[in-house]
Amino acid sequence: MYDLKSKFRHVMDFPEKGIDFIDITTVLADSEAFQYAMGSIIDQARKFDFDVVVAPESRGFILGTPIAYVMKKSFVPIRKKGKLPYKTIDIEYNLEYGSSVLEIHQDAIRPGQRILVVDDLLATGGTTLSNIKLVEKLGGIVSGIIYLVELGYLNGREQLKNYNVVSIVNFEK
Amino acid sequence: MYDLKSKFRHVMDFPEKGIDFIDITTVLADSEAFQYAMGSIIDQARKFDFDVVVAPESRGFILGTPIAYVMKKSFVPIRKKGKLPYKTIDIEYNLEYGSSVLEIHQDAIRPGQRILVVDDLLATGGTTLSNIKLVEKLGGIVSGIIYLVELGYLNGREQLKNYNVVSIVNFEK
Repeated sequence: MYDLKSKFRHVMDFPEKGIDFIDITTVLADSEAFQYAMGSIIDQARKFDFDVVVAPESRGFILGTPIAYVMKKSFVPIRKKGKLPYKTIDIEYNLEYGSSVLEIHQDAIRPGQRILVVDDLLATGGTTLSNIKLVEKLGGIVSGIIYLVELGYLNGREQLKNYNVVSIVNFEK
Repeated sequence: MYDLKSKFRHVMDFPEKGIDFIDITTVLADSEAFQYAMGSIIDQARKFDFDVVVAPESRGFILGTPIAYVMKKSFVPIRKKGKLPYKTIDIEYNLEYGSSVLEIHQDAIRPGQRILVVDDLLATGGTTLSNIKLVEKLGGIVSGIIYLVELGYLNGREQLKNYNVVSIVNFEK
């Protein structure tokens, strides 16, 4: 069994004091670890029925497009306010400190299309819930959600309990 | 011959009055266009000898990781200041209005590694030149640079004349 978990770097006190930040760049920079991680994600993705991969800026992009390319699906980005050039719909969501706005192009998803949501890390699930709301506003159906990393102790799955959630690596406290 | 060029959306006056913005999201959202675009990029990438794909936040990420995954290479992100968690080196570069700072992890590239730089669009070449400087500061050797789109009339290749530059689609005025 390949030890993917040991390939992540822990950076203490980033972005704030007391946070044990899981750095995925050491996985990306190790071609063997990246093959294993991405291959595992694609194996999981094959279990879902979907047409479109949706992923949020920026780390979601890193993992989302290889799935879309290898599986011959389309890719739709969710971005921070003001980054998408065409007409958008948006959603405000709360961060630990303050709030932020996410956008999706209003014509990015056709009603009834089946969606795989991808992101690097499941913490509390707040970002993903905002992604889902944008997808569903456009009439998309969320088939599943895939993360490379899950912080199990933060119970993000509770917020997402009506959806199929998969992660490749789980970190407990 | 597949007409990829017609799959890009032109958005006038984004992000500023007078700009004819080339929107790649319509290519990404069309699975056939995305297959063709990404397949063409990977065909070009195979002509270069490299170990690592380097791409800048955020649209570079979209095109960079499928190359790295399909060709079994590693991937290194360049990000805006404050986004990378570990120790970085940085570079300031001028935008049309004001300036910005880009960072790369200081241990992301080993001296002598061969690098493919990937981004969505070649305009004046300023962002890519900053990416190259970061790569070379770490001892990396730039084998080639690939873009999905080139705005030929902005002469970005002039700034990059010491490098091998390839683009898939060229828009002239």
